[in-house]
Amino acid sequence: MKTINVGLIGCGFMGRTHSNAHRRLGNFFKLEHQTVLKAICDFNEEKAKAFALTWGFESVETDWRKLIAREDIDLIEIAAPNNLHAEIAVAAAKAGKMIICEKPLAMDGKQGLAMVKAVEKAGVPNLVSYNYRRIPAVTLAKNLIDEGRLGRIFHYRAKFLQDWTISKDLPQGGDALWRLDAKVAGSGVTGDLLAHCIDTALWLNGDMDRVNAMTETFIKERKHNLTGKIEKVGIDDACAFLARFANGSLATFESTRYARGHKALYTFEINGEHASIAWDLHDLHRLQYFDHRDPGILRGWRSIHVTDGDHPYMGKWWVPGLQVGYEHSFVHQLADFLEGLANNKTTGPTFRDALATQYVCDAVLKSARTGRWEKVSKIRQSS
Amino acid sequence: MKTINVGLIGCGFMGRTHSNAHRRLGNFFKLEHQTVLKAICDFNEEKAKAFALTWGFESVETDWRKLIAREDIDLIEIAAPNNLHAEIAVAAAKAGKMIICEKPLAMDGKQGLAMVKAVEKAGVPNLVSYNYRRIPAVTLAKNLIDEGRLGRIFHYRAKFLQDWTISKDLPQGGDALWRLDAKVAGSGVTGDLLAHCIDTALWLNGDMDRVNAMTETFIKERKHNLTGKIEKVGIDDACAFLARFANGSLATFESTRYARGHKALYTFEINGEHASIAWDLHDLHRLQYFDHRDPGILRGWRSIHVTDGDHPYMGKWWVPGLQVGYEHSFVHQLADFLEGLANNKTTGPTFRDALATQYVCDAVLKSARTGRWEKVSKIRQSS
Amino acid sequence: MKTINVGLIGCGFMGRTHSNAHRRLGNFFKLEHQTVLKAICDFNEEKAKAFALTWGFESVETDWRKLIAREDIDLIEIAAPNNLHAEIAVAAAKAGKMIICEKPLAMDGKQGLAMVKAVEKAGVPNLVSYNYRRIPAVTLAKNLIDEGRLGRIFHYRAKFLQDWTISKDLPQGGDALWRLDAKVAGSGVTGDLLAHCIDTALWLNGDMDRVNAMTETFIKERKHNLTGKIEKVGIDDACAFLARFANGSLATFESTRYARGHKALYTFEINGEHASIAWDLHDLHRLQYFDHRDPGILRGWRSIHVTDGDHPYMGKWWVPGLQVGYEHSFVHQLADFLEGLANNKTTGPTFRDALATQYVCDAVLKSARTGRWEKVSKIRQSS
Amino acid sequence: MKTINVGLIGCGFMGRTHSNAHRRLGNFFKLEHQTVLKAICDFNEEKAKAFALTWGFESVETDWRKLIAREDIDLIEIAAPNNLHAEIAVAAAKAGKMIICEKPLAMDGKQGLAMVKAVEKAGVPNLVSYNYRRIPAVTLAKNLIDEGRLGRIFHYRAKFLQDWTISKDLPQGGDALWRLDAKVAGSGVTGDLLAHCIDTALWLNGDMDRVNAMTETFIKERKHNLTGKIEKVGIDDACAFLARFANGSLATFESTRYARGHKALYTFEINGEHASIAWDLHDLHRLQYFDHRDPGILRGWRSIHVTDGDHPYMGKWWVPGLQVGYEHSFVHQLADFLEGLANNKTTGPTFRDALATQYVCDAVLKSARTGRWEKVSKIRQSS
Repeated sequence: MKTINVGLIGCGFMGRTHSNAHRRLGNFFKLEHQTVLKAICDFNEEKAKAFALTWGFESVETDWRKLIAREDIDLIEIAAPNNLHAEIAVAAAKAGKMIICEKPLAMDGKQGLAMVKAVEKAGVPNLVSYNYRRIPAVTLAKNLIDEGRLGRIFHYRAKFLQDWTISKDLPQGGDALWRLDAKVAGSGVTGDLLAHCIDTALWLNGDMDRVNAMTETFIKERKHNLTGKIEKVGIDDACAFLARFANGSLATFESTRYARGHKALYTFEINGEHASIAWDLHDLHRLQYFDHRDPGILRGWRSIHVTDGDHPYMGKWWVPGLQVGYEHSFVHQLADFLEGLANNKTTGPTFRDALATQYVCDAVLKSARTGRWEKVSKIRQSS
Repeated sequence: MKTINVGLIGCGFMGRTHSNAHRRLGNFFKLEHQTVLKAICDFNEEKAKAFALTWGFESVETDWRKLIAREDIDLIEIAAPNNLHAEIAVAAAKAGKMIICEKPLAMDGKQGLAMVKAVEKAGVPNLVSYNYRRIPAVTLAKNLIDEGRLGRIFHYRAKFLQDWTISKDLPQGGDALWRLDAKVAGSGVTGDLLAHCIDTALWLNGDMDRVNAMTETFIKERKHNLTGKIEKVGIDDACAFLARFANGSLATFESTRYARGHKALYTFEINGEHASIAWDLHDLHRLQYFDHRDPGILRGWRSIHVTDGDHPYMGKWWVPGLQVGYEHSFVHQLADFLEGLANNKTTGPTFRDALATQYVCDAVLKSARTGRWEKVSKIRQSS
Repeated sequence: MKTINVGLIGCGFMGRTHSNAHRRLGNFFKLEHQTVLKAICDFNEEKAKAFALTWGFESVETDWRKLIAREDIDLIEIAAPNNLHAEIAVAAAKAGKMIICEKPLAMDGKQGLAMVKAVEKAGVPNLVSYNYRRIPAVTLAKNLIDEGRLGRIFHYRAKFLQDWTISKDLPQGGDALWRLDAKVAGSGVTGDLLAHCIDTALWLNGDMDRVNAMTETFIKERKHNLTGKIEKVGIDDACAFLARFANGSLATFESTRYARGHKALYTFEINGEHASIAWDLHDLHRLQYFDHRDPGILRGWRSIHVTDGDHPYMGKWWVPGLQVGYEHSFVHQLADFLEGLANNKTTGPTFRDALATQYVCDAVLKSARTGRWEKVSKIRQSS
Repeated sequence: MKTINVGLIGCGFMGRTHSNAHRRLGNFFKLEHQTVLKAICDFNEEKAKAFALTWGFESVETDWRKLIAREDIDLIEIAAPNNLHAEIAVAAAKAGKMIICEKPLAMDGKQGLAMVKAVEKAGVPNLVSYNYRRIPAVTLAKNLIDEGRLGRIFHYRAKFLQDWTISKDLPQGGDALWRLDAKVAGSGVTGDLLAHCIDTALWLNGDMDRVNAMTETFIKERKHNLTGKIEKVGIDDACAFLARFANGSLATFESTRYARGHKALYTFEINGEHASIAWDLHDLHRLQYFDHRDPGILRGWRSIHVTDGDHPYMGKWWVPGLQVGYEHSFVHQLADFLEGLANNKTTGPTFRDALATQYVCDAVLKSARTGRWEKVSKIRQSS
């Protein structure tokens, strides 16, 4: 068995999901590689120490540059806020480390392109954590599409609805609230939520050609937790866009944090010539499937309880009928990444794949400003 | 076109559903026979007159014996309280009238048997209004079973849950509340609600051999609306029973008027070797269907929106996707009855069929008293 | 009781829904006015005669001008294809007839404006049949919004999905297929389906300011049933648009006839500061409601079975728990119109209200051509 | 921090769920006690060694007596087949070990009583793993009932439906199939599945007085994997029973492994005077709640997505909207047990609590034989 020493940067929500993936992996997946939680890194030392204790990291760093400089680290995982991704990733790549980076890849496409160049030049395995691909029902959707069951695709629609920022009294910035700070997050729902929807869409439905978007910031000013002052809110609270895919299908995308009644309702639906599929994150263990080739009087949407041994990943867990949850997607992602290493196979979404999502986000935000259709930049072959 | 003159007895809820069926039939179904609303009969003359005006009955009677004596009446419809069914039906049969009788057939099996003998001796077409058979989704269920899609049946379960009598202040007896008066209704939920469940079950799953039941009256005394006094409540507020069918399947049945949150939730589910089906009255336009022969990874319960032109009865109404409602079941029932007349074909449930349901009810109520398994009486060949 | 003599133009699907409304009205609603089915008009005489027989019209006309000229006609109902609405309506208004017109109001806003001017000049009661407003659950939604239960509205989203034109072999034009013929229908899903979504939205959420749309015609050529030739398809098979309302809320709308698995899935959802509501046509008897003011641990989407006596219109029908269907919306519409006459109260949507919807459709189709945000024309005060 | 050394007996499905609970606990719950996976015990040494490697047990035993004799073991966890529970538990109690035992407690009440006496005499902390109590939605249900939100309870109904033994070719006995072998399992669905339903019911609804049951074995003979011969099947494939609770409520219970379409559908519903609740294992993260005290027009079943920080246990995991799964119930159970130790508080279900469930199972199986109502034995005060 080969050992991979992990250095994780960031002790927040995503730091926890990544740590958990490492802790659980070996109990369920038999792989050639085994990861070791070598070091946790956070500028807040106290927090880092507590985190190390909880998750069993062997050491603590407070400067990510030192972490990257350490020779005993093989894999850098970036679970820091978005504005740090590029700098860390480029440095890690130069140091020859493997990298798993939280999504979105970067603050914008320009940064993202630099990151792609860095990892490709260094030739290091790299992955961006669009973890929803690894929800068993979503992977099943991918398999059904790849098998051609849907036929020609006419429509794609996705939403990611939340309601946690409706109160005017919620401050922006600092700690868990950095997602409301444009300087740290880059954008609001576009990079945080729609990026997930876009990644899945590109994976399931291929390239997107152009988009036409609108954004809105419902609460214009909020107290900033770091400065203590009322400051202008720079992020998009809501974003909706129309899109056209290269395969001729039409799409609508929408995300907001002002949809009362929805905590994290990521949904997508795909309508094909022969069949349609739909999924949502609030019942992530189910896939809805309609097949027009069923006998006429028996046609209906099937609610597939994706918990059987022959469903993606599910043979590793319990028995049919017993759900897994959100966190398992990170375990699956890590398992796939390590299996890719063992088989010398690239596991997506790579930085390059995530750059495509970044380019869509850029086009969306541009269109929201111009009020026009904007083309999505194509990814050039890296040199 | 042949004309059938109808004499309807009873101006209550069921009087309305029957009248509506006649009024709507000709607009949607092309049949050899046409019905004419000749006379409405109710002991309350004022009520009968208003009813006649609303529904277009040509005349009013206050004595059902006079109605039956009229030579211009071909078909007697009995929508009077349960305690009147037998006397009216026997008289109508002797007078050579066709009869459509509201369910349950009678106060008990003894009465029911007399009714069966009367109509069979007279040779008059007869039908009992177990209208749920004619909900398109329920008829579809019957067709799927008859086609053998389910294979050997292992389980049948049905419930009919309501919550309208929970308040202690609700009186019993009189007008719309006769269903709470044991002397008029015969029983509580057993005859009112479980009778529906049993009729469907016998239709879909064949003969029932024996039952084991319990009943309960949660509110022991209520004011009686006719006497104005507090009287003991004689009906069963709730009834649940175990059953064994002749085909070897096991069943559970339950009904209550004390299930908070359910207005008229009649549900059934049937589990077969190859497939299962489920239905409920609160979404009566859907049928749930699971087929084990689907490819493993794609198995799931299908929600069939029973609104297509090739679904039972639905070709007569609107276009796919547009629901019909509760009342349409009575239109379908009438259409089937008239079509049977035209084709000289018996349309069920006949009085004889309904007697089988009555015998189950009798056995259920007996078992609730004895605390034992009770055999369901077999229907002897009529002489 | 006052009698209103009806002349109905058109024997198709909508001719049936309108006729049915008249036939059923009096059995359930007690109103000052009573309608009489005086004449049915269709250029196809044979069809008109059969229709008259089925529905009980007293006479048949084959020329709508003759019908309008008849002095014994009080109310003209237009259930003819879209391209005839304007000419008929203007003539009927001039003749002083009341008018109920099928939706969409016209082929475009220009025609629609002429119609508005005509009815307002003539001072005749007028209504456009956006019947979904009168589904009890939709009316309940309106009431909840008017009571202020949702607070400030952030989001509106609506879809109308069908799948009946996916086959390339489906011809266009003629009879029931006129909806596929741009010259007769004006547009495809925009006028046929989105118009419904827009009408509801304007009713529930107020004025729409601007839109940004895309349309697509997936099958470019189809055989035309009238010419027998392969002709270019002029309608939009699919249309999606972004919108901004005057109240500051954002919206997405989408319609298609290429969404496999959906027969007539009209859905809308509205997210407010305090509460959200959602509805869909495939389960039209339910309203989904989420209220943030519920105790935290008990918050959830409520599925309201809109069948109680105190729910809109439902006191007229059966008992709690028993669904009504699609067709009832037309009965409710007619009842409201007649009640308006009796009370000298305008019942919407009037021609003027429907013109607002038409202007949105025009802006949508224009935006689909220009690729830009287009303002929705404001309705000028009629002179 | 105090250390508790664990000796786990059994490497099957339940061995895995228990091991997983220990492995995950410390990452999410901050407790005074910490468990150490000291030893795994299985008569199959090879299997035990592999299991130790996967889950990180420090040592391996093949004789449970030796394990119990080890002084370095504080807590014995019994995840062995049912026929071994009593002997192991009594020995462990005598050795002064804490015990967590898989459900059902024993083969029958007699065995169970001996176990209760043993642990109570020894004064050792003891728990039976009825893990479904610790699904957050189920715990929420308990809290709602304890707060009195439902008022007087009228009805309780529960089912546990599976479909994995329908094929005649499935053998009985040996390894994962011991649940089909009456000599090892004690009973079929009664002890395996209904025991779960009964435990929850006693917890939520109090004592059960008497029951009336039927059982069935659909496939009478199966090949036995250990003998290689066709042998009579001794277990119950299906069991349904009626019950009366001490609080006056009526209940129905049903379980089967022949319900096509259901993998592990455990459902319960409770109807109270004011409110009702419902839950099912296939969507374990939701609780259905209906409150009659809501305003009339807004009453409906709420689907509560039990994933908020103030929902039971959920503050320990991720963020609102993100589901946990089946396995988490074992983590919660272990956390509660350890917290009980720290606070010197008994955590249920104890052996004594589980004996009550056993007595219900005994009465159910007896009633299935006698065909009569059977009283449920009361638990005498232990001496």
